[in-house]
Amino acid sequence: MSTVKVALIGFGTIGTGVAKLLLQQKERITRATGKTVELVKVCDKDTQRDRGIALPKGVLTADLNEILNDDGISVAIELIGGLEPARSIVLSLLKAGKNVVTANKALLATHGPEIFDAARTYGKSVAFEAAVGGGIPIINAISTALQANELRQIQAIVNGTCNFILTAMEENGTNYKNAVAEAQRLGYAEADPTMDVDGTDTVQKLTILAQLAFGVCPKWQDIPKTGIDTVDAIDIVYTKQLGYRIKLLAVADATDDGIELYVSPMLVRRHTPVAGVRDAFNLIKVVGDAVGECVLLGRGAGEMPTASAVVGDVIDTILGRTKTTFDVLKLWAANRPAKTIKNPADIFGKNYLRFLVEDRPGVLAEISGVLGQHGISIASVLQQETESENSPVTLIIMTHASREGDTLAALEKIDALPCTFGKTLRMRVE
Amino acid sequence: MSTVKVALIGFGTIGTGVAKLLLQQKERITRATGKTVELVKVCDKDTQRDRGIALPKGVLTADLNEILNDDGISVAIELIGGLEPARSIVLSLLKAGKNVVTANKALLATHGPEIFDAARTYGKSVAFEAAVGGGIPIINAISTALQANELRQIQAIVNGTCNFILTAMEENGTNYKNAVAEAQRLGYAEADPTMDVDGTDTVQKLTILAQLAFGVCPKWQDIPKTGIDTVDAIDIVYTKQLGYRIKLLAVADATDDGIELYVSPMLVRRHTPVAGVRDAFNLIKVVGDAVGECVLLGRGAGEMPTASAVVGDVIDTILGRTKTTFDVLKLWAANRPAKTIKNPADIFGKNYLRFLVEDRPGVLAEISGVLGQHGISIASVLQQETESENSPVTLIIMTHASREGDTLAALEKIDALPCTFGKTLRMRVE
Repeated sequence: MSTVKVALIGFGTIGTGVAKLLLQQKERITRATGKTVELVKVCDKDTQRDRGIALPKGVLTADLNEILNDDGISVAIELIGGLEPARSIVLSLLKAGKNVVTANKALLATHGPEIFDAARTYGKSVAFEAAVGGGIPIINAISTALQANELRQIQAIVNGTCNFILTAMEENGTNYKNAVAEAQRLGYAEADPTMDVDGTDTVQKLTILAQLAFGVCPKWQDIPKTGIDTVDAIDIVYTKQLGYRIKLLAVADATDDGIELYVSPMLVRRHTPVAGVRDAFNLIKVVGDAVGECVLLGRGAGEMPTASAVVGDVIDTILGRTKTTFDVLKLWAANRPAKTIKNPADIFGKNYLRFLVEDRPGVLAEISGVLGQHGISIASVLQQETESENSPVTLIIMTHASREGDTLAALEKIDALPCTFGKTLRMRVE
Repeated sequence: MSTVKVALIGFGTIGTGVAKLLLQQKERITRATGKTVELVKVCDKDTQRDRGIALPKGVLTADLNEILNDDGISVAIELIGGLEPARSIVLSLLKAGKNVVTANKALLATHGPEIFDAARTYGKSVAFEAAVGGGIPIINAISTALQANELRQIQAIVNGTCNFILTAMEENGTNYKNAVAEAQRLGYAEADPTMDVDGTDTVQKLTILAQLAFGVCPKWQDIPKTGIDTVDAIDIVYTKQLGYRIKLLAVADATDDGIELYVSPMLVRRHTPVAGVRDAFNLIKVVGDAVGECVLLGRGAGEMPTASAVVGDVIDTILGRTKTTFDVLKLWAANRPAKTIKNPADIFGKNYLRFLVEDRPGVLAEISGVLGQHGISIASVLQQETESENSPVTLIIMTHASREGDTLAALEKIDALPCTFGKTLRMRVE
C-alpha cells in the first residue's frame, strides 16, 4: 500500500482536531483512500503549548521550510486563518507542488482568484469544505451532486455565534449584551466577537457560496451587510408576536435581473426549517430548478465538526476528486461563466424598522411622510406606550416591499430628523 | 470537445425528467463535465405514449440491443424499477461495457453484491444517488464528504408517501383511509400503495444506507419493519397530547453490541428537525463521531427532484468520481469491512401500545400482568371512556425500555387473550 505524506500548518483548535483524526483514526482514513496517510509535519509558531495530543517526535516544527522543501509531502492543510501570512503560505505551498486543503473563508473570499489561478498554474488542487458551514458538506453538494441544477437561491445561517446569541435572546428573554457574554462563557464567541456579530464572517462565506453557485466574484466588502449587534430584546418580542423569528441570513437570490446578494438579520416565518435552527447550528438551504428545496443542517464550527470537513477534503484530495471537480468548474477563473450581480440599491423587499422617537404629536406623521415621499408603503405600525412622560418612545414600522435604494435614502433622512434618536434598526422580512 | 453518449432505459416519470435535463439543459451539463453529453437512445416497451417531450428522431426504441450493441454508448441509465428484468438488464449493460446509473432501490437492496461484483469484473461503475431520498445528495455525502467519520446513527424519513399521509392525518385530523385517498389524488401515492405504507420501500432504502455507512449486507426481508397502515387518527391525537409526532423512520444505530436496524412508525419529540418534516419531504439525519449531527432535507420523490440526482450521477460517472469512490469503498464486496448486525430481538426500546379490549373489570390487570411477566414496565396508561356500554374500549400503554424479543412475545400472548380484539398496534418511541 502506498503512503501519502500530509502536513498541517496552524496547530490551533481545528488543527488539533485534524491531528487527532489523522493520527488516531488511521484505519478509517486508509479504508477511505486505499492508502496509508501519514501526518509528517505540523507547523506552528507556538511549539510549546500543550494541545492535549502527543505528536510523534520530529513532527512539530516552527519552520515552514521543512514542509516546503520536502517533496515527499503532497498534501498541505492550511489552518492559520486570516489573510497574511496565510495567503503567502498557500501560494508557496502550491508553488512547491502541494495540494492544499484550507478552512480559510477570509482568504478565499478575498483572494480566491489569485489562489485558484496559482493552483491551475502549478497543476494542484485547493479544497475548502471547512470554509463554509463547518462539518456540513455544502461545498461538496453544490459542486458535485447538485450540478444538474440551475440554482435559484441560497439562504444560509453560517455563523453559529450569531445564531447562538439570537437563540438565547429568544428562548431566555435575555438581552443582546448578556447573550454575547453567555456565548463567550461557553466558547461560542471569541473575546472580540466583532467579525461574527457585525456580519463579516457571514458575508465572506456568502461570497464563496455565490462563486460556487453562480460563478460571481464580488468583493465581499461591496455586499450589503447588517449584523446582529443592533438587535435588541424588544425586537425579539415584537417579531415573535408577529409570528417571526430573527435569523442572521446570507442570501444569494437569482432574479431575472441579476443575483441579489446580502447579509441581514431577517424575520423568517416560524415553523420553517430556517426558523427552527437553534444554538450554534448552521443551515444552508439551496433551491435548484430540478431538485427544488434542499436543506443541509449541522454543526458549523467547533474542533471536531470542522476537522471532519478538513479530513474529508484530505481524502477527496488524495483520491483526486477535488482536482477533477474544481478543474471542470473553473472555480474563480476569469473564463468561468458568471451571472450578473444586481445593484444592491435595486433589491426589493419588505422591512422591519425600529425607530426611537420623541413622544409628541406629529412624529408619526413626519416619519411616515418621509417614507411616503420615497414610495415606501406601510404595512403595520406598533408604538409602545412610554414609561414616563417625555422619554423617547419606540416606534416599529413594517413596510411593504420597496426598493433598497429608496429605503436607505428614507432612513438617512429620518435618522437626521430632530424627532428621532440614534440610528434606525432595519431588518429585512422574508 | 469530446462527446459522451448516454442511453436511458425506462421512459416513465423519472425517465422523462432525465430526458428533459439531458436534452434541454445541455449547457449546464457541458459546464459540469467539460464534455458534450448526448442522449442517443431511450428504450421503453411503450414507444407510443406521449410524455410531453419530443425526442430526436431515432432515439426512442423498444429494442435494448440497440444500446447493448452500440459500443459508443458509455453510460446507461436504468429507470425500470423492480427486480426483473431490471437485474438482467443492468448485468447485461455492465457486461457490454457501460457504466450504469440507477434509481432502483429494490434492485440494490436485493442484488447489491451481484451488481457490484459484476461492475468490478467488467471495470465499470454503478451510481445510485436517486435510489435513496430522491434529490437529496445523501449517498454522496456519506460516501465522500463524511468519510472522516465513524458513523454512529442514521435516522431517515425516506418515504414521501407515508410522510404525506401522516402529515395530513396530523394537520387535518383526517383518518388513515382518507389521507391515503388524498395522497392518491395528488399523485403522492400509487393506486396500490402497499409497498410504501407497509414499510417495504423504506426498509429497502435502509438496507442501502446500512451498506454504505456500516458495510453490513442484511437481507432486507430480515429487517424488522412496521408500516403506517395500522396507525389511526386516535394515535395521532394521543401522541400529540404527549408531545410527540409520528414519523415512519428507518433507523440504523451503531451500538456496542452491533448495528440495530429497523423500520417503524416512531414517536419523535416535537420541535426536532425529524418531527418538523412535512408533506412528501424526506429527511436523513446522520450522526458521525466527528461531525456530530448532520441533517439533509429535501424532496425524496417526483420527476424533477429524482432526475436531479440521476443526472448528477451521470455527471459523476462521466468525470470518473463514481468509480473512484465506490472502488475504494469496496461497496457490497465480500472483503468490505463490516460491523455486526444486532439480533433484532435484543434491541431495547420504549413502546407505544394500543389495544382494543373488552370493557369489563380485570382487563387492565390481565394485560399489565402479561407485560409484567415479560419484564416490561409500564410508564403510562390511558383508557378512553366507552361511547356505549359493552362496546370495546381503546387502551393505550407507554412502556419503559424493554427487550424487543420480550415485547413481541408479550404482544403475541396479549393478542391471544379473549379480552382483546384484533392485533395490538405497536410503535417505537424515540
